[in-house]
Amino acid sequence: MNSFRKVISIKTDKKEEIINITGRVREILSKSEIKEGLLLVYSMHTSSGVYISDSDTSLNDDLTDLLSDLIPEGKGYKHNLTDYKKNAPGHLKVILSSHHVVVPVTEGRMDLGTYQTIYYSEFDGMREKEVLVKIMGE
Amino acid sequence: MNSFRKVISIKTDKKEEIINITGRVREILSKSEIKEGLLLVYSMHTSSGVYISDSDTSLNDDLTDLLSDLIPEGKGYKHNLTDYKKNAPGHLKVILSSHHVVVPVTEGRMDLGTYQTIYYSEFDGMREKEVLVKIMGE
Amino acid sequence: MNSFRKVISIKTDKKEEIINITGRVREILSKSEIKEGLLLVYSMHTSSGVYISDSDTSLNDDLTDLLSDLIPEGKGYKHNLTDYKKNAPGHLKVILSSHHVVVPVTEGRMDLGTYQTIYYSEFDGMREKEVLVKIMGE
Repeated sequence: MNSFRKVISIKTDKKEEIINITGRVREILSKSEIKEGLLLVYSMHTSSGVYISDSDTSLNDDLTDLLSDLIPEGKGYKHNLTDYKKNAPGHLKVILSSHHVVVPVTEGRMDLGTYQTIYYSEFDGMREKEVLVKIMGE
Repeated sequence: MNSFRKVISIKTDKKEEIINITGRVREILSKSEIKEGLLLVYSMHTSSGVYISDSDTSLNDDLTDLLSDLIPEGKGYKHNLTDYKKNAPGHLKVILSSHHVVVPVTEGRMDLGTYQTIYYSEFDGMREKEVLVKIMGE
Repeated sequence: MNSFRKVISIKTDKKEEIINITGRVREILSKSEIKEGLLLVYSMHTSSGVYISDSDTSLNDDLTDLLSDLIPEGKGYKHNLTDYKKNAPGHLKVILSSHHVVVPVTEGRMDLGTYQTIYYSEFDGMREKEVLVKIMGE
């Protein structure tokens, strides 16, 4: 069994932003030389996540709009009374959407469906954040 | 280390439908002859997912009702302005519920709790779709 | 390849309760002697889950409040007509938040970010429940 680990650094321009990281994950898999196995794409944070969805980026706004509707700012969150960053909605948005994904690896490639795209979802950005890619296999 | 990969084909009768795929996943695990490891059940699509829940199928309607309440049709989704299939809610429903699951495998069996059932959740059906089962272990 | 399996038993005092299980998972990883791999923390139930979030426990109430807002009791769930425990909201809360997590393992430690904490989320408690930790690697 082999394993391979690589960190992707991301700094968004806005507090909330969704970024396609499929190409960067693909490069890491290629470097790993692992042909068969499982690939974990894991946000090192609690205010950003990773999910798989459609390649059309207009959907990114639909997701951030939806999450802001379901988890509005300024709703008396207890976390915001104890934490100076007052980012309860950011944390809750990650729990409701997705924090990490596991992708199958076959013949050296991710088994992504035609439109499947790996996204990094940032809800507390404008600073250096990290996504860990860990691959296990042979 | 061994790995095993098998695709399950699913065509639902309705646009939205939830299907118990536990038996089909169990058969694939049995064929793999893997005794200890991890099993990934992964939707190859962005408008269908996989999740684990109770064996009582009446809960399936409760889930699709809930998701339709939280993510209503006809709400001015940006994706629906750019994509002819206009299925923003379908994509968002997968992100909010679950896209894939990882199940432990011990002594050749999935470590499912008493009532745990693996479901395929379709939000854009009536056509051939695929779920990938990838097992890693020994 | 090695694998290691251990069950954590949990009995909450309340029907809904969120419990930090990071320390117990860390102990299991230490016993496994696995240095590189993937670690699955998996609820054996359909009315409790596992997720990763911030170390500040005030956020736990924010999550249970949010889920109770989105999935209110007494809303005519079909499951509650067929099941004597009538716990449709509990099951749906797990699907909407998170049922299990996969954590990278590097040099014998979980690759958790600074504030990352592994939580068990109970929505049908006051009885013995089980979380399975399954580790694969070398």
